[in-house]
Parts: sequence; structure tokens; C-alpha cells
Amino acid sequence: MRESELLRHISARSAGLSTTHPGVVVGPGDDCAVIRVGDAELLLKVDQLVEGRHFARGTPIDRIARKAMARPISDIAAMGGQPSCALAACVLPKGFAKADQLFDAVHAWALKLGAPVVGGDISTSEDERAGLVLSISVVGVPHAKRGPVLRSGARVGDEVWVTGAIGDSFASGRHLTFSPRVREGAWLCDTLGESLHAMLDISDGLGRDAGRIAEASGVRVVIESRLIPLHARSAGSQVGGEPDAVLAASEGEDHELLFCVAPRAIDPMRIASAPVALSRIGRVESGAGCALIVGESVMDAGELGWDH
Amino acid sequence: MRESELLRHISARSAGLSTTHPGVVVGPGDDCAVIRVGDAELLLKVDQLVEGRHFARGTPIDRIARKAMARPISDIAAMGGQPSCALAACVLPKGFAKADQLFDAVHAWALKLGAPVVGGDISTSEDERAGLVLSISVVGVPHAKRGPVLRSGARVGDEVWVTGAIGDSFASGRHLTFSPRVREGAWLCDTLGESLHAMLDISDGLGRDAGRIAEASGVRVVIESRLIPLHARSAGSQVGGEPDAVLAASEGEDHELLFCVAPRAIDPMRIASAPVALSRIGRVESGAGCALIVGESVMDAGELGWDH
Repeated sequence: MRESELLRHISARSAGLSTTHPGVVVGPGDDCAVIRVGDAELLLKVDQLVEGRHFARGTPIDRIARKAMARPISDIAAMGGQPSCALAACVLPKGFAKADQLFDAVHAWALKLGAPVVGGDISTSEDERAGLVLSISVVGVPHAKRGPVLRSGARVGDEVWVTGAIGDSFASGRHLTFSPRVREGAWLCDTLGESLHAMLDISDGLGRDAGRIAEASGVRVVIESRLIPLHARSAGSQVGGEPDAVLAASEGEDHELLFCVAPRAIDPMRIASAPVALSRIGRVESGAGCALIVGESVMDAGELGWDH
Repeated sequence: MRESELLRHISARSAGLSTTHPGVVVGPGDDCAVIRVGDAELLLKVDQLVEGRHFARGTPIDRIARKAMARPISDIAAMGGQPSCALAACVLPKGFAKADQLFDAVHAWALKLGAPVVGGDISTSEDERAGLVLSISVVGVPHAKRGPVLRSGARVGDEVWVTGAIGDSFASGRHLTFSPRVREGAWLCDTLGESLHAMLDISDGLGRDAGRIAEASGVRVVIESRLIPLHARSAGSQVGGEPDAVLAASEGEDHELLFCVAPRAIDPMRIASAPVALSRIGRVESGAGCALIVGESVMDAGELGWDH
């Protein structure tokens, strides 16, 4: 069973949670869960970093800690929220000598990114060959006025935008050093309010993640490859003869915000005052799936990118 | 570095979090963290289940899921709180064939124990020999009137009590099937209110955990071995010639509540109406550490039990 099938299985199992459990506002399937406790709404997210899968053996401890904290916080940012605190759980390989260094780094990055570690759990593996596993759960709060920005709010006629630039995240090492777009997500909520219809962070590839907005919103997302803002490619990161934009849309771990807004809600003055470059890359139509327009041809972008 | 040293290192790193971050009411070191979001107080806890460490290879999937959910919920119970929801993160061994069964079981136990899984993360290990890792984060709410019951509230003169019976948890298999004392913890808060001074759940051994109350409260805990309520020992679980009570106090994974109350706060009528057997096993004195009285001799109980 592939992870995507398993996730569908879990998602089906969890359907209706928000009906049976009034405290569950949004269950599994969005960037974060949204729960209500008393008068407060909270965002919840867990992400794991697994050696050999999310980082290579030998990656500096500081980078591992940074990425482990940044990934779930990027999901908080993708709802327009602010991180509050974090829980850290870790499985250390047997004989791992840098545990104190790892936790100092996790602690430091947690503070720097606004989510102090308030609790944790450590286990040591029985196996020296076992890889390091670092699992970070983050609690956040939604934007006070806009509330949580879900994947499911895109409407026909919306414009599709992206922050920053896409692609080459692995080859460049940016997947270890990206900054979660917390400030940028908050700025979008402040500035666009209810015109900001849907948002997520690009983790599994622009194409696949745009397909998730399409699926959650019941719409078709059309992206024009010529409009995608690209990072310069690192030496040797070219693959086959694929155009750069298609490659970039399939790579993942960009952790830029992909969002859908009401037409003409973002005017040039707003773009100029934004804390990050904003690029319009497509539109929302009626239909299903995500289409990537490359020259004269149309690709099914929902199949691009990373299926675990 | 042993885990206890590492935990001290982390604890030292985290000291003062509640000063610098007003939202952090209680940081690392108690059964749960306590945070404040808006007007709401929340309990947060993460616990991992690691194959080979917390369960043996070949343990039925349903038991693994049950224990994974029950452990952090037991910590919510130990603060007198109620679970609200959970996040589940899992590293599956490569080629693991029972992923859907595992998640159905996690989902079912989460609902049964009152903490529906609202989000999760799945990774697959690159290694077929790697063990299963299941990390559960639970969000809970403290008792509405009593507030969170910490480890640090024990006072000289308090009585020391325990729910249920202790010992033989591994040999009997109870470590896989215990029920977190959520109802019992709430009953103690309802019934004793402010007279309930300190509480925790026994995970690393009665002696070692009583030592933690002593350390957090700046007191000495004295336990009389003859008063400890014991489970009957499974065949073959006898070790050496140690008295059963000493063995039981050192084994751990009992997940019973150990608590300190004002003298004479628990009268016979209250005991009769309790949802679980309650046993007075000791007292709180001035001083430090945890002493276990065995016949004529006194043992340092804080050194008993499980140091990771």
C-alpha cells in the first residue's frame, strides 16, 4: 500500500470527526487540524524527519534540527497562523553521541521560529544502524480576523499565486534552510482578509499540491509554466530534457505558499509592499484536477511530484 | 550520555521558558506541559512507542495501537485532565504490510479513549529491519475547578496514596492493556479539590516516580513497602530473592496514579465511593529523595526502577 493510498484510507476513516466531535473544526487532510477548546481555536500539526528520507546521514545537526522545526511551522504559516509552542519526540540511534547538541539545536531553532519546546520524549533504538527520527508537533493559533485559511476555499475565477521562487530545493540544500513563511502568511491574511480563499505550503511539489487545492475545493486549477518563478538551478541538478518549470513543479520541499485569491484583489501597490515576491501563476476554473500549461501542451500536474 | 542526563540537560535548557514565554505555564519536566491560549489552558504530551523497547516484535497490532494511545493519555489523567484530541506520527518498517490495520486500530483506540486523531504523518523507513515507531501527541484540558495537578505541590505532612495495584506489568502483559486513569483522576479532583496537592502516573517505577515528586516539591517521600498494593505475580516473573514490593516498586509501566493529599482528606466514606481502589502507602516529610521502608531497613527508592 502506497502512502497516498494509506492517507486516503485514514482520511476516509476520519471523515465525519467534525460532526461527531464538535471540538474538531477541521480534521485530517488540510495543512493543520483546527480544534476548538473553550473560546480558543487552535492549529495542530505533526511532521517527522527521518534519516535517509528527509535528510542524508552526515547532515549537520543544526540543519536537521532547523528543518525538523521549520516543516510543521510552515504548515501553521499555510493556514495564516502563528506558532505557539512545540513538542519534540526523538528516536536516537544506539550510541548516538550528539544528543545534547541535537537538543540544543532543536531548542534554539524552536525559539527562533516562535514555537518553544514545552515537552518531549526520547528513546534510543536497539540498533546502531537505525536512523535518527525526529517528530515535531506544533500548536498554533489562526489569524485573529481571517481565521484559518483552508485548502477547500478556492472558487472559480480565483487567481492562483505563489510566494518566492520554486525548484531546486534539494540540490541547492534549501530544503534544510528554508524559513517558514509565517510573516508572509499573516501579511496575506491582514491584507487580503476574506479575499484570500485558499492556501497551502508546497511540500510535495507545486503540481501535486495545486491538485490538492483543486480536489479539496472541487475546482480545476490551471497553472502556466511560463509564469512560475524559478530558482536558478544548481550545477548538475538538470534532469533529462524536461523544461525547468516542469521539473520545478515536480520536485517539492519548496515550502512556499500557494494561494488562491479573488480576482484583482492583489493590486500592484500591494505587491510592492509585500514582505516577499508574489507571482500570479494561474487561475481557478470549473472542473477537476490541476493542469500545467507548457507551451502548446497541457500536462496533468496532479501526477507530478512526490508520492510517498 | 544516559537519557536521564540528557533529560536534565534539556530541562536546564528549558528552565525559565514560563518567564520568557507567558503562554507557557508549565514547561518540560511534569507529566504534561501546560500552556495558555486566549482564555483556555491546555495540557500537551508526546510519547513514543518504539519496537524492541516498548513492545516486542510480533505484538498484536491492536495492542500496539492501544498502548501508544494510552500512554500519553495516562499523563493527561495524571494532571487531573481530560483528553481532547491527538496527533499520530509513524515510521513504518520498509514493506510493512499492516499499515491500514495499524491506523484503524489507532483510530479506534483514540475514539475509545476520548482523543480522536485529528492529524498525522507517515514515513516509511529505508530499512526492512527497522522497527515500528509510533509517536502520539495528545492535547487535553485541565480539570475545570482544580486546574492542572502538578508534581511540585506535595507538602510536608501529606499522605501518599496510589490507585489500583502495582507490579508485574510486563510479565502479565498489562503494560499493553492498561486503561488510563482519566475518570479516576477527575474523581480525585472533584472530590479532593485543593487538598489534592501533587500527582503523577507511575511509568518508570513507583520508587523512581515518587522520587520525582520529592524532587519537584522539595520534600522527602517515605513509602512503606508493606502498604503497597500488589498485583499477584505471574509465573516465572519472580526475580532473585527480592521482596515482591521492592520488585514491584522498581518495575514501572503500572500507569497507576500516585498522589499526595492533605492529611485525613480521604476518609473511609470517600474511599468506598471511589471508582478504583485507593491505598495509602506513605507520607511526605521534610528532606529530599524517596525512602522505601522494607522491614527494618530503608532503601533509596529514587534509584529503583527504569533509567533509560
